[in-house]
Amino acid sequence: MRADYRLPRLFIDGDLSEAKPVVLTKDQSNYLLNVLRMDDSAPLLLFNGRDGEWRAALRRSGKKGGVLEIGEQVRPQPPMPDLHYLFAPLKVGRMDYMVQKAVEMGAGIIQPVQTQHTQMPRINAGRLEANMREAAEQCGILTLAELRPMQKIGPLLEGWNPARRIVFCDEDATDDDPVPILSRLTPGPMAVLIGPEGGFSDDERRMLRALPFVTAIPLGPRILRADTAAVAALALVQAVCGDWRGNVHDDRVTDD
Amino acid sequence: MRADYRLPRLFIDGDLSEAKPVVLTKDQSNYLLNVLRMDDSAPLLLFNGRDGEWRAALRRSGKKGGVLEIGEQVRPQPPMPDLHYLFAPLKVGRMDYMVQKAVEMGAGIIQPVQTQHTQMPRINAGRLEANMREAAEQCGILTLAELRPMQKIGPLLEGWNPARRIVFCDEDATDDDPVPILSRLTPGPMAVLIGPEGGFSDDERRMLRALPFVTAIPLGPRILRADTAAVAALALVQAVCGDWRGNVHDDRVTDD
Repeated sequence: MRADYRLPRLFIDGDLSEAKPVVLTKDQSNYLLNVLRMDDSAPLLLFNGRDGEWRAALRRSGKKGGVLEIGEQVRPQPPMPDLHYLFAPLKVGRMDYMVQKAVEMGAGIIQPVQTQHTQMPRINAGRLEANMREAAEQCGILTLAELRPMQKIGPLLEGWNPARRIVFCDEDATDDDPVPILSRLTPGPMAVLIGPEGGFSDDERRMLRALPFVTAIPLGPRILRADTAAVAALALVQAVCGDWRGNVHDDRVTDD
Repeated sequence: MRADYRLPRLFIDGDLSEAKPVVLTKDQSNYLLNVLRMDDSAPLLLFNGRDGEWRAALRRSGKKGGVLEIGEQVRPQPPMPDLHYLFAPLKVGRMDYMVQKAVEMGAGIIQPVQTQHTQMPRINAGRLEANMREAAEQCGILTLAELRPMQKIGPLLEGWNPARRIVFCDEDATDDDPVPILSRLTPGPMAVLIGPEGGFSDDERRMLRALPFVTAIPLGPRILRADTAAVAALALVQAVCGDWRGNVHDDRVTDD
């Protein structure tokens, strides 16, 4: 069931199923009262990543605070999306954007990967998780994707569950056609890997191409920025193999 | 032939084929000398949107200026991409990003469209064109996409050349599968239409669905931000119908 995108949506940290009123934090008050300028008794939707989506109403108390009265559940909790998104960190602003897009596109695991040409030696997990929550709020996504600690690409691939296919974008694979490559894959759990702006090193590319659970796809004749390639690759994977295929619902979640 | 993305690339406004040295403007000097910190005789690539791509070398004169000595042509001028990109304007920062992505994804015509729920009543053409040039510089694109004046959606569709198919993303078409829909289309010139963040109005959606040259595609079960939908839709169209199909080269350019 699609989200009702006309109502504001808020992530809250507490329990929803007990119907206890939710006291707004300072940030939440600011967002609802000052940014969205919601009136008393205005409706909104709440989610906490585990109890589905609930309708609620704002009860203002004074100028700066309020409580949310919980109403009915409007959508049940869906299964976690089973798509993993692996990416080399970018500079902060672009990376905020990139993880938002990955959540919008249905990734369930967000895995930063350190590669030879990666620009950033570390990530700000709190900031990325805030961006992931915001994308879920804005796009009616009721599951909270999991941000995993950054790993170097070698160890990540060494410990990889070979049942999960990795699709990566290979700038050198320009004579092929991505849709037929993807449509020939055996259905199953998948991951999309996006390299850094400078691309993978020759060693890394050789390593990837030698792995039986890795598939390289081209993304056209032009150079793409990493965040463009991310959305493009996710779109192709979701449309050919994933949950963009209309009534196909992939409820299996693999524990990896 | 793919761009050499290891060298800096600069758009210049003048002629390239005469091999006359190019005197750098103040902005260009700042970019090459201060931002990129290029040394004397460092190589770069130049393009002007009509003469292909040429290798050049920087000759610094003093701390603040320089000339570019033109060397050999390294890539011929390719044909203009024939894909049109139609979009409802977004708030300025997101729109900068969106037009960059459209250029990276191979659009040749960038057409802003005023719709009922569009947030922005006008666009800053100079700013958008600067973003389009920057995307071309960074991604090795040698053609300069054309930015057309904004039009209201009604008149735009009334004057539309019916030989060019418009693919638009319909939030309500969630039971279909985008790849088969696109693969059944007769090959020919295409356009991708992205609505505003609030979506098309019911009247607009009815009007679009009634036109014989318009095809609606779903983009999965989640809500997408307009700029995410843009890249996703362009990726699907380019991969199924356009120039991402490996060795298929579509050199026809339709005059519309």
